[in-house]
Amino acid sequence: MNAPLPSRLAYVPFVSVENMMKLIHETGLREMLTGLADYIEQDFRRWELFDKTPRVASHSAEGVIELMPTSDGEDYGFKYVNGHPKNTREGLQTVTAFGLLASVGSGYPVLLTEMTLLTALRTAATSAMVAKHLAPRGARTMAMIGNGAQSEFQALAFQAICGVETVQLYDIDPAATKKAMRNLHGSGLVLRACDSAQAAMEGAEIITTCTADKQYATILTDNMVGAGVHINAIGGDCPGKTELHPDILKRSAVFVEYPEQTRIEGEIQQMPPDFPVTEIWKVITGQARGRSSATEITLFDGVGFAIEDFSALRYLRDRLKTSRLYQQLDMIADPDDPRDLYGMLMRAAG
Amino acid sequence: MNAPLPSRLAYVPFVSVENMMKLIHETGLREMLTGLADYIEQDFRRWELFDKTPRVASHSAEGVIELMPTSDGEDYGFKYVNGHPKNTREGLQTVTAFGLLASVGSGYPVLLTEMTLLTALRTAATSAMVAKHLAPRGARTMAMIGNGAQSEFQALAFQAICGVETVQLYDIDPAATKKAMRNLHGSGLVLRACDSAQAAMEGAEIITTCTADKQYATILTDNMVGAGVHINAIGGDCPGKTELHPDILKRSAVFVEYPEQTRIEGEIQQMPPDFPVTEIWKVITGQARGRSSATEITLFDGVGFAIEDFSALRYLRDRLKTSRLYQQLDMIADPDDPRDLYGMLMRAAG
Repeated sequence: MNAPLPSRLAYVPFVSVENMMKLIHETGLREMLTGLADYIEQDFRRWELFDKTPRVASHSAEGVIELMPTSDGEDYGFKYVNGHPKNTREGLQTVTAFGLLASVGSGYPVLLTEMTLLTALRTAATSAMVAKHLAPRGARTMAMIGNGAQSEFQALAFQAICGVETVQLYDIDPAATKKAMRNLHGSGLVLRACDSAQAAMEGAEIITTCTADKQYATILTDNMVGAGVHINAIGGDCPGKTELHPDILKRSAVFVEYPEQTRIEGEIQQMPPDFPVTEIWKVITGQARGRSSATEITLFDGVGFAIEDFSALRYLRDRLKTSRLYQQLDMIADPDDPRDLYGMLMRAAG
Repeated sequence: MNAPLPSRLAYVPFVSVENMMKLIHETGLREMLTGLADYIEQDFRRWELFDKTPRVASHSAEGVIELMPTSDGEDYGFKYVNGHPKNTREGLQTVTAFGLLASVGSGYPVLLTEMTLLTALRTAATSAMVAKHLAPRGARTMAMIGNGAQSEFQALAFQAICGVETVQLYDIDPAATKKAMRNLHGSGLVLRACDSAQAAMEGAEIITTCTADKQYATILTDNMVGAGVHINAIGGDCPGKTELHPDILKRSAVFVEYPEQTRIEGEIQQMPPDFPVTEIWKVITGQARGRSSATEITLFDGVGFAIEDFSALRYLRDRLKTSRLYQQLDMIADPDDPRDLYGMLMRAAG
């Protein structure tokens, strides 16, 4: 007797890295960034109904492995993500990720996906969506300090969502800048390679800092930052890792995803626990003020929150309704009679 | 240009439900139960070095979704598991599960697997391994109260690991008993279908209770339990779900996996917070006494702990070294240059 085929319920759609890349091309990267930003903004608008369980971190000498779950009461999502700074020396990714979406009603998984690429996209989409609410009107030039794996996604998201036309790039490693310039060639952005952070910031209304060192670094000092800019600070995202001098924070109106998490992981870990911040979802829903004047410095201290991953999983689930770029994984044991798991096993004996 | 093939590092071995069933048959179910019991016992012997993070539960009106992570400092494992009692009414499993093993050193996943079947096996292997340490010498007859999805696995584990020869079955639903009798036919066990729990317990030195109702039930009352038996109580495994009358607990020496969890989920949730229990790993390592006399009632209040899943994942990883019963999942984005995720994406454009 042959093994019976698993039922429809036993299958979980899985998006591999290869299919994710194809899906991004099929969709168009800018369209996907815009779509993700819409889903993220929708979820920020209903922020209060989410289960905001803290991430579960397992720390070791080499790095950290985290599970980031959340739920809106209908869907449940979690992301597995590691952070191992030493990995690059061994030809591995510092950060890799995968994620899962499940039905709260049945507990059955409904989507499994790579999330290394998807996280880069949702991070860029979040940054640009936030900047749309905070950046000065008519901002067209962005400084990009740090030209690593996230930089091209950030540049394209700001182009697609905020109308940025010029990106001025700087990295302590000129090879990284060269790589980003090459990758962004043909994007329609005007690109300028700069030999200092100061030079990159000249004339920029938006400053994105996205460097990778796991240490307290001072990528920007106070005297470098002029009035009225928007700073998108996404590199300081774990304890012990910051990019900005505290004096910049003191001069800025600081916006965060979730204060409980950002005070541990973000730039504001350098500040006292009562340092004033505004939750960005309150700006989006009109419950709090965003930019208050043309000369104010606004600063998004972005660390990445589980709800953004949830939005990305929701986007992907909906996107797959009109795409075949997934495999069906036989992941759920589904006996005809739920009490007869053993019978299912025995009938599978060929 | 074709999409470049993912490198070896990008692949994660995945064991589907179909391959798990084949692997169980390839290995032999009793051999696999015995192998799992050995891995679980090894890990109980080094209990203290494990990271015992509490499980992360997301509760809803319909059920619960849990993530159960743990680590021994070298490997990291977690299980996703749901519990939705109403699922059976819709032809779905009450409990489904999958799990992942990763390297602590790199954070990279090394194994993804279905765990609905694997959990049934590890639960049975744990019960029998614990009984090997606690049951009266020469026990050959087991009562099996509750003949649902777990029962056959329990019966076979006790046969393989403890030398049980006779199983006396009872369930409030005679159809469940009939199903278990049919499934265990040809196992070499002497089987007796009984029409009451009392009848099933007659002459039994080991009593396994494994019923499914999510409520405070009294499957066993005090007068039913004679001196010297070992009770393997695995059905009381979440808040609000117990099977035994508290008087039985008072008369017994109670052994648990992890008191912090069992006091919330196990039979002892009925007892005061200082009710004395012994951690089973201490019995296994010789740091605490197990059975103290031939007339003592020993009781294992088993709720299932993350370390048992970790042992099962370790067992499976090692077992796959000599089996091809897995697929390679392209789950990890692995650019040649870790800083060039975008370049990898662009080169994949066909």
